[in-house]
Amino acid sequence: MSKAEFPIARPALNAPALGEPYLLTPGPLTTSLATKQAMLSDWGSWDADFNRITAEIRQGLLAMAGVHDDSYACVPLQGSGTFAVEAALATAIARDGKALVLMNGAYGKRATQILDYLGRDYIALDKGDYLPPQPEEVAELLAANPDVTDVFLVHCETSSGILNPLREIADVVKAHGKGLIVDAMSSFGAVPLTVDEIPFDVMVSSANKCIEGIPGFGFVIIRRTLLEQSKGRAHSLSLDLLEQWQYMERTGQWRFTPPTHSVVAFRKALEQHVAEGGVTGRQMRYTNNRNVLVSGMRDLGFQTLLEDRWLSPIITTFFSPAHPNFEFKRFYDELKARQFLIYPGKLTTAESFRIGCIGQIDERIVAQLLRAIADALAVMGVDTCQPAA
Amino acid sequence: MSKAEFPIARPALNAPALGEPYLLTPGPLTTSLATKQAMLSDWGSWDADFNRITAEIRQGLLAMAGVHDDSYACVPLQGSGTFAVEAALATAIARDGKALVLMNGAYGKRATQILDYLGRDYIALDKGDYLPPQPEEVAELLAANPDVTDVFLVHCETSSGILNPLREIADVVKAHGKGLIVDAMSSFGAVPLTVDEIPFDVMVSSANKCIEGIPGFGFVIIRRTLLEQSKGRAHSLSLDLLEQWQYMERTGQWRFTPPTHSVVAFRKALEQHVAEGGVTGRQMRYTNNRNVLVSGMRDLGFQTLLEDRWLSPIITTFFSPAHPNFEFKRFYDELKARQFLIYPGKLTTAESFRIGCIGQIDERIVAQLLRAIADALAVMGVDTCQPAA
Ligand SMILES: Cc1ncc(COP(=O)(O)O)c(C=O)c1O
Ligand SMILES: Cc1ncc(COP(=O)(O)O)c(C=O)c1O
Repeated sequence: MSKAEFPIARPALNAPALGEPYLLTPGPLTTSLATKQAMLSDWGSWDADFNRITAEIRQGLLAMAGVHDDSYACVPLQGSGTFAVEAALATAIARDGKALVLMNGAYGKRATQILDYLGRDYIALDKGDYLPPQPEEVAELLAANPDVTDVFLVHCETSSGILNPLREIADVVKAHGKGLIVDAMSSFGAVPLTVDEIPFDVMVSSANKCIEGIPGFGFVIIRRTLLEQSKGRAHSLSLDLLEQWQYMERTGQWRFTPPTHSVVAFRKALEQHVAEGGVTGRQMRYTNNRNVLVSGMRDLGFQTLLEDRWLSPIITTFFSPAHPNFEFKRFYDELKARQFLIYPGKLTTAESFRIGCIGQIDERIVAQLLRAIADALAVMGVDTCQPAA
Repeated sequence: MSKAEFPIARPALNAPALGEPYLLTPGPLTTSLATKQAMLSDWGSWDADFNRITAEIRQGLLAMAGVHDDSYACVPLQGSGTFAVEAALATAIARDGKALVLMNGAYGKRATQILDYLGRDYIALDKGDYLPPQPEEVAELLAANPDVTDVFLVHCETSSGILNPLREIADVVKAHGKGLIVDAMSSFGAVPLTVDEIPFDVMVSSANKCIEGIPGFGFVIIRRTLLEQSKGRAHSLSLDLLEQWQYMERTGQWRFTPPTHSVVAFRKALEQHVAEGGVTGRQMRYTNNRNVLVSGMRDLGFQTLLEDRWLSPIITTFFSPAHPNFEFKRFYDELKARQFLIYPGKLTTAESFRIGCIGQIDERIVAQLLRAIADALAVMGVDTCQPAA
């Protein structure tokens, strides 16, 4: 993975305010000043001007997913991304359906927790912390469990940063005639995911990941026939996706008070996404960030959890050094003092931390981060970054 | 209701940006520039600085409700206010409990819709569009239905603007030993509601009403013992209030991605709430707004839906003029062109519209609005504002 593998994107980035840290996290992330400034007005949630913004956003998201007719609907939903995942699962899986949940981290696991609340049947394939579910395994499970109606997969499992083999799995799911539900929370907008290539039935993402908006809502892109036939499936008024959609179609408005400022900021973020070259442009910048990060960290002696071919351009997990002077809390604080926030690891076994490549950052900022990490290690007296064996 | 009934509060108000309308709605509403400017930074949702803000907000809200010990908990929840109402109902009412829902408008009705989704038993007292539920009626219903466990009341029923007799009903509910759940969405922060006066078990409100924050989350103030004994009641992972609270207590963080910018703006809004004299100061300004509005509208010939004693300082419903030239859409557009957004009515029978008194507005702005309304009527050729008989 060399730096030159991708041409270097140099968009106009906005530095955070003086002293404010860069968020090298899976989101909320560092957004552009223009996106934040869009929140300096108030909007009537009933007014046509605001409804127009909602409509623009929904169209923009459908276009990003390669939808050019009315075969799919885009339904935004108030709340965090999990709220949208829960609404999507409740809508897509019949009350007497059965899901196959592909798990290799916290977000696959969360889907099973949601299904427990919903009281919907499922089986799970748990690959642990860092291995991808394989298409052949999925094929076997579907053959052995013909009562499975839907398969749930996390595209980029943000717990480790792994980019799961969505396309290959999608082909298997479709060959078996099953529904496909994709949690693309942390990938949509920066990894291509279009209906012509990936025949998903449901895709879920949110405002504050790769489209670089402000948290406040998630959205579901769903096959329209599926949505239309979901009447009576929802377990919750607030999370009833069909009602949300029907109301929006009928009135142009959100069913309940929308996060107006986050919505308006998202429109601004979408404009910048287009200006950067859409998904391709963003993928280039993030991938370049990731490449500079990973090679710089390896130069410092760190090891990635994942093999290169599974690394996403979203976030990367590094093993914590086994050195007795290394303590994550101290490392975090040293980096924060140097204007960078990173994330703790989410592995069940090994000590680790994560560094995000998404948001308003580019390779210059990653280079600054690498210097800050070297400084922090020096201050902490950590002279070797080998993980525990 | 004379103008002099309350001293006139003159806080430092911020005009909206040039050309931007004032939102004379039940929220989202016109917020201060300082509140919006607080959103010009990004925050790591895992970071201690952000956790401190969450803690401050929760403490501030408990103090506003008159809670000075740990007998109650404040649990913020992502999403619109309805999400928090749904979470509160699911938490407070046992799965085999039974609610008495007091209804006189859309938000009382919404509680019954939520209970339908939850599959929890209830009876309802429906008072129609503009009459308050009476304490005696509640007493009778509770006597006749001893299996009722909890009573749900909307404090200010924003559909009409009526301020329901919360205190009297609270006394009856408590005399019968029942749980009391109050939807104070549109009143908390501007109408006194403290645990010493109103022995509620659960109170729900949201960021973008009388505390003048930005939409993105609601919050529930709930008797701690009730919360602690609610395990297993939630129907939804996202809306599980007990889990949300336990996670927040344990980590200081929100369980899922918080609406960071809305949270930070809310802290700023709380500061301004305190600076204005807290609930008393805000109630004075809103009440004065309402008084100037109602007397000015009556001078123009409009009639209020409600008798004076039921008018809230939050929002007022006026009957639409019966004059053949009056058309709400046109009226709305004329007012919008004059920098004011109002709200359509929500009555099941009569034609009406609503004007809010909340947000960053004071009597000078209400006076401008009254001139704009007079202008609009003149332009429309409406020379009498009598409603249909
Ligand atoms: C893949 C994935 N799914 C779901 C979520 C949950 O989103 P939220 O925290 O907004 O509820 C995340 C958040 O990082 C995620 O990365
Ligand atoms: C009394 C009352 N309850 C509930 C709600 C619902 O809140 P939201 O629109 O934020 O879901 C409102 C909104 O105006 C309200 O006024």
